[in-house]
Amino acid sequence: MRTHEWEKDGWLKIVGLGPGAEAMITPEVTAALAEATDVVGYAPYVERVPPRPGLTRHGSDNREEIRRAEQALRMVAGGHRVVIVSSGDPGVFAMSAAVFEALEAGEPAWRALDIQVLPGISAMLAASARLGAPLGHDFCCINLSDNLKPWALIEKRLRLAAEADFAMAFYNPRSKARPEGFVRALQVLREACGPERLIMFARAVSTPEEAVRVTTLGDAEPEMADMRTLVLVGSSLTRHIAREGVPWVYTPRSAPGSES
Amino acid sequence: MRTHEWEKDGWLKIVGLGPGAEAMITPEVTAALAEATDVVGYAPYVERVPPRPGLTRHGSDNREEIRRAEQALRMVAGGHRVVIVSSGDPGVFAMSAAVFEALEAGEPAWRALDIQVLPGISAMLAASARLGAPLGHDFCCINLSDNLKPWALIEKRLRLAAEADFAMAFYNPRSKARPEGFVRALQVLREACGPERLIMFARAVSTPEEAVRVTTLGDAEPEMADMRTLVLVGSSLTRHIAREGVPWVYTPRSAPGSES
Repeated sequence: MRTHEWEKDGWLKIVGLGPGAEAMITPEVTAALAEATDVVGYAPYVERVPPRPGLTRHGSDNREEIRRAEQALRMVAGGHRVVIVSSGDPGVFAMSAAVFEALEAGEPAWRALDIQVLPGISAMLAASARLGAPLGHDFCCINLSDNLKPWALIEKRLRLAAEADFAMAFYNPRSKARPEGFVRALQVLREACGPERLIMFARAVSTPEEAVRVTTLGDAEPEMADMRTLVLVGSSLTRHIAREGVPWVYTPRSAPGSES
Repeated sequence: MRTHEWEKDGWLKIVGLGPGAEAMITPEVTAALAEATDVVGYAPYVERVPPRPGLTRHGSDNREEIRRAEQALRMVAGGHRVVIVSSGDPGVFAMSAAVFEALEAGEPAWRALDIQVLPGISAMLAASARLGAPLGHDFCCINLSDNLKPWALIEKRLRLAAEADFAMAFYNPRSKARPEGFVRALQVLREACGPERLIMFARAVSTPEEAVRVTTLGDAEPEMADMRTLVLVGSSLTRHIAREGVPWVYTPRSAPGSES
């Protein structure tokens, strides 16, 4: 087998920039960005990487994940050192899945490329940290956008998650294009969990626009969420501790009926 | 109200050290450790923090979470700058929930203490990154230990998670004290998901002992997991891409029946 240039030099790192604060970006991600020739991603995330000589920044639109992934893979095959950036963690409703979809459907030679995924602080765990420990016991994580799956599947998962008594984390609760989805999600959750269940809205955590709110399903309004909001719902055991400002929220480590 | 010394000086930071590699520890966690007077935690995690003058390291046993949390809160009330360390993220089956349990049950004055939770790279997302993007769509996260909850609840959650067609991440699959739990979990999953479903074993990711394996529920053996292993199970849509070595595994972003 002859040696291609890209086998020696090109690489792809699919990285998570965390929720916003520089202090939450891991050193391995910072190092990858320092060695990259190209940064690829949704434009607002690419803009979080400062420009420097030798680095080309390729920002693209929100719904272009597959095209963006193919572009990155082609550049890597051509010998570039490419970083694909996502906010939060790249494996949670972000670019990793799109890259592997493009890899599977693309040129067979791409499978030999040097690819690494570097995890980041997910929006879900950053939100949980700000609130205390609402995900301190078994939980699930659901993307509420029906862009890529039918609403019936979302509703089925909400009902089963409530029956399993999971704490829940919701990504993409609401956009201007589909404001009605979150209204329906709140209705389903109220039916399944009752009006006293705790719900938390964590917007833009770790950025200057951070805003965190704790309320109940009975008092929750759809307008409390937007596309930058991570929504958390407690399990039946989740508790809050009043203090000055936003209360702490936590889900205990033990469930009734345990032997210890 | 008179001013206590601790109101001026003491603080508690509950931090995640990530799965093992230094390059995955966030700068804000590194900064907290540099300013701390005391580090508290399970002994093997405390040992990950290098000793230095002015820092006291308090390592304790595995099942001492509440006592450890109370000890930390008392030290903070006494003006110490205390970091409680967990592996991975502190909010996922780790010390955050224990601290808030101790806070709620403890002295009312503790609620005014300066407490922050600093998220870390969770074992689950580090494992997912090594494998590709197995948690690239809706997923759940379950602690398989029945130390603090009845086995019946674990089994119920496994069955409902399978019915919801979540990808799944399992913490604490197996210990010497209870080897039979994971045997039963595998049986339940085989019944509910069928023998072809992908299962992944990610041991000690990002450490020198890292070992990653991809197989199917039909071929999985309980011995493939130990207490340092994070186990992932795909949804019905999860795919693998053969390549040299461990295959990539990913869960596509879209589900059948979506409009786009």
